[in-house]
Formats: sequence, structure tokens, C-alpha cells
Amino acid sequence: MTLLFNLPEDESFAYDLARELGWQQGTLEWHTFPDKEISIRVLSAMTSSDVYFLTNLHHPNEKIIKLIFVADALRSVGAKKITLIAPYLSYMRLDEVTKPGEGLTSKYFAHFISHYYDALITVDPHLHRVRKLDALYPIQNHVIHAAPVIANWVWRNVEKPVIIGPDEESEQWIKVIAHEAKLPFLVFKKKRYGDNTVSISAPLMSEYRDHTPVLIDDIISSGSTMVQGIKALQASGMKKPVCVGIHAVFAEGAKENLLEAGAESIVTCNTIPHSTNAIDLVPLFVELLQQL
Amino acid sequence: MTLLFNLPEDESFAYDLARELGWQQGTLEWHTFPDKEISIRVLSAMTSSDVYFLTNLHHPNEKIIKLIFVADALRSVGAKKITLIAPYLSYMRLDEVTKPGEGLTSKYFAHFISHYYDALITVDPHLHRVRKLDALYPIQNHVIHAAPVIANWVWRNVEKPVIIGPDEESEQWIKVIAHEAKLPFLVFKKKRYGDNTVSISAPLMSEYRDHTPVLIDDIISSGSTMVQGIKALQASGMKKPVCVGIHAVFAEGAKENLLEAGAESIVTCNTIPHSTNAIDLVPLFVELLQQL
Repeated sequence: MTLLFNLPEDESFAYDLARELGWQQGTLEWHTFPDKEISIRVLSAMTSSDVYFLTNLHHPNEKIIKLIFVADALRSVGAKKITLIAPYLSYMRLDEVTKPGEGLTSKYFAHFISHYYDALITVDPHLHRVRKLDALYPIQNHVIHAAPVIANWVWRNVEKPVIIGPDEESEQWIKVIAHEAKLPFLVFKKKRYGDNTVSISAPLMSEYRDHTPVLIDDIISSGSTMVQGIKALQASGMKKPVCVGIHAVFAEGAKENLLEAGAESIVTCNTIPHSTNAIDLVPLFVELLQQL
Repeated sequence: MTLLFNLPEDESFAYDLARELGWQQGTLEWHTFPDKEISIRVLSAMTSSDVYFLTNLHHPNEKIIKLIFVADALRSVGAKKITLIAPYLSYMRLDEVTKPGEGLTSKYFAHFISHYYDALITVDPHLHRVRKLDALYPIQNHVIHAAPVIANWVWRNVEKPVIIGPDEESEQWIKVIAHEAKLPFLVFKKKRYGDNTVSISAPLMSEYRDHTPVLIDDIISSGSTMVQGIKALQASGMKKPVCVGIHAVFAEGAKENLLEAGAESIVTCNTIPHSTNAIDLVPLFVELLQQL
């Protein structure tokens, strides 16, 4: 029987996934010492040398030591192939060196993961200048696309929707979703001035005045891109938008900022556990893992 | 000219070391994004392919991502050999698997460091069942012993001292110190019941009633071993002890517990920046690095 291990934060996702696949959930015991060092113990007997470890990589820095210890501890009890299931993959954004001496952190992180794990499964990684995950990750990797389930969710929950991409980078996601749901879409243009400051220019959209705008982005982090999108919609006399993100990164205050700016509602996929999770991606994982 | 990089926390140690050796301090620029991911930039031009990175490994988990990014970023700008100077080396305590499935974290951590760095310099690592650092670290490594400078400090600062080891594990440190300082020493026996609970049994020491006990251990972490040592000294009618630690790990409240229990004073080496630092190990590093 296949064993699936996970961190406590991802228990709900892991439980559903194991149940649907008929897999067994493995148990890891963690202990934190007074000096903040941690220990690990694998409590489940290995039933196969091919095992899975599930963890979203939100707030990745604090999880690195666990990624190391899990891989080494599982190998010490007989694991030969360890597949990392990371519904949210971190360190994808710095994908090009623009200043001398700048670290290419997306590559460094990819090499770290690839040193410890044999395969990777993730959902819509933030690919921008680097177009394929293979270019960063030398290990076997599988990308799940949330577009079909998001399209389905929009189709079933929003009246007369028009899909809006808050910036050019989002076009790759929203085009597919709009196509799947057979819905119109528009893409805004964004200019970024810093981590938290962006401006947006919107196309003419008088013909969509009676539609419900659905602002979609892959990651909602600081929320500033979405907030600018909401403001641009307001300035165009559009209805309050439904905001959809694949990955609920949500820096502190981001959700509140969106609601304050005028979001009708905020909806995310469950790649990172968050109060806005409403679109379940477990079925897409089940489908992929049954094929593998 | 040799370049020495460091984390901000170790600036004072790095500054002194670079000055004494005639080395140049390199500059790393760090940035934290709203989603807690970090970036790195190497601002110093490489003047040699042989570089040094100094960081104490206290509270190691939060530093792992930096250890990865520093090594990869330095290599990207031309570093060929990177020596990690870790005055305090973490994850040395779990050095034997006692329960099935338990992770041998000292080995895992050593392999992680050895994957990213070419050499290691540290001070008195907590070697217990594993007797030599080579058994854990496949890379070139150098161990500095604080004993001579501690012996010197005791000799110059304590009147009529008697060296006390709070448990059998400490014997390896205090024997050398007592020998260097030509002072008498005694070793207590310890029983550990958990992370924070220990009991101590003390030998007869009526002949040292007029001495100042100097309790010495390699690491002061929870402080419970030292506290039991202080209590055993009190029970034997001894004077208030001077407590000396090589590494000022100090879990929350540990320093206060020692003072409350009756420590006359608490003194540590500067392997981890702390208010109790009084014994400077920079000269020992200078001596070693000039030889290499």
C-alpha cells in the first residue's frame, strides 16, 4: 500500500487525497527542544519503497529543515523514491538575474528540492520568464492546472461573468479559464514600483457593465495587484468583482485590503490552507496520481 | 585579499576577525518580500575564489535557507571553495538512534552542510557518543578548543577556584580546563528525565568550602543542568558559583533561572552573541586561520 506523509498543516488535504486513492497516511512524530532544534521520527512501517510527502511550501523558510529531515529519515527506513507533493511551490518569482551579484533563488531552491526529492508534483507554478518547470527542476515533475475547476466554479457560482486578468502575467491563466468556461475575458496592464506599489490601466469595457467581473490571478500575495484591479473596475463603472486566486499566499492584511477596496467576495483553491479556500483541487491530484 | 561574509547577527565577531587577519568583509544584501520569501545579492566583487562565510548556528532552522542561498550565490559570482565558520555548531546532540524510525539529525545536518560548503571551522562541538567531527562531516573540518582561554579567564578572574563539571558529559571539557589552569576539579553525576528535568548527585567536597566553585559546561541551553549543579553546591555548603558556558544557547528564561538559583555570575564565550559573553575567542580563530 502506498504511504503518504504530510505536515500537520496539510492534514485535511492529505486525508482527502489518501482516502480517494486508497492510500495509507504515514505518521511523522516531531519534537521541538528548548533550544528550538527539532527531531523527527517515522512511526509508520514502510510498506513500499515508493513514498509521497505532501507539504504546501507557503512560508517556505521555516519548512526547509523539515524538508531535509523528512527526506533523510524516510530514506533511513527504506524509502527509495520520494515524491514531493507541493500544491503551492515557493521561490518561483525571482527567475532572472537583473543586477550583478543577485542570487537566482528560483534555481537555488529548485536544486535544493531536487537534491532531496526524486519527483515533484505541484499546481500552476508561477512561470513567467522561465516557461517550463523542467528548466529549473532537474527531477521528474508534474504540473497540475487548476483552470478547469476554476472555470467550473465560475460557471456554477457567478451570474453573467466576465473574466478579468489584473495584469499581463495573468493572461496565461485567465485565457485558459475563459476558454474552458466559454466566457469573455479582458487583461489589464500593470506597472510595478516596488513590493507593494502597482498601477493598473484598464481597457474600455462599457459593453460588460451588466456583467459580474471575476478578477483572477495565480497568486494573491500582498494583494496590491488585485486592489488596483478592483479600483480600475470601479473607475470604469463596473460591478463589484469576485476575486479568485489559485494560491492563497495572502501577506498580512491582504485579505482585508481586498474587501476594503470593494471585492464582492474572495475565493481560492486549497493549495494553501486559508479561510478563502472554496475550490477543491484534490480531484485533480487523484486523477494525476491514478495515471502515474 | 581574502573575503569574509557574515550574517548581520555576527557582525561584531566578523569585524574583529577580518581586522585581525587583514581580510576584507564582504557585503550581502538581503530582502524579505511580503510573502516572507527572501532574496540575496552579493555586493562585493570576488577577489579570490577561496571565501569564508561566518554564521553562528544558534536557532538554526531559520538560517537554513540563508546557508543555501549564500553558498549558491557566492558560487555564481566565482567562489570555488567556501569555508563555513560556525563558532556554534547546531544539531550535534541527537547522535544515536535509540528508537526505531528516529532520525539521526546530527548526520542529516552534517550532510546538508557538507553538500553546500567545502570546509567547516567550529568551536568545541557537542561530541558525546560520536567522538570525532570527521565521523559526521565528510568535508574538511577544524575544531577550535576554548579550554585555554577559559582556563586563562578563570585564573585571572576567580579567587581560589575549584572547577566543577555539572555532569559526566562535561568531564571532557573541564578536565582540560582544570589541567591548563592547574586547578582542582570535581565532576557531578546527572540523571535526565526529560528536556527540562534533571537531578544531580555531588561528591563530598568539604575540603573546598573556602574555594569559589566554577561550574563549567559546553552548552547552557535550558540551564537545568547548571541549576541542579548550583543546588548541589548549595546543599554541600559551598559558596555561590561562577557559571561558565562555551556556547550561550540560553533557551527562554534560562539566564534568569540560573541567577535565581544562586549563580554568582554567568560568563560565556562569544560563539553566540549574548549579554553574558565575556570570553573572546577571536584570537583562537586568528591563530588557526593564519596557519591554514
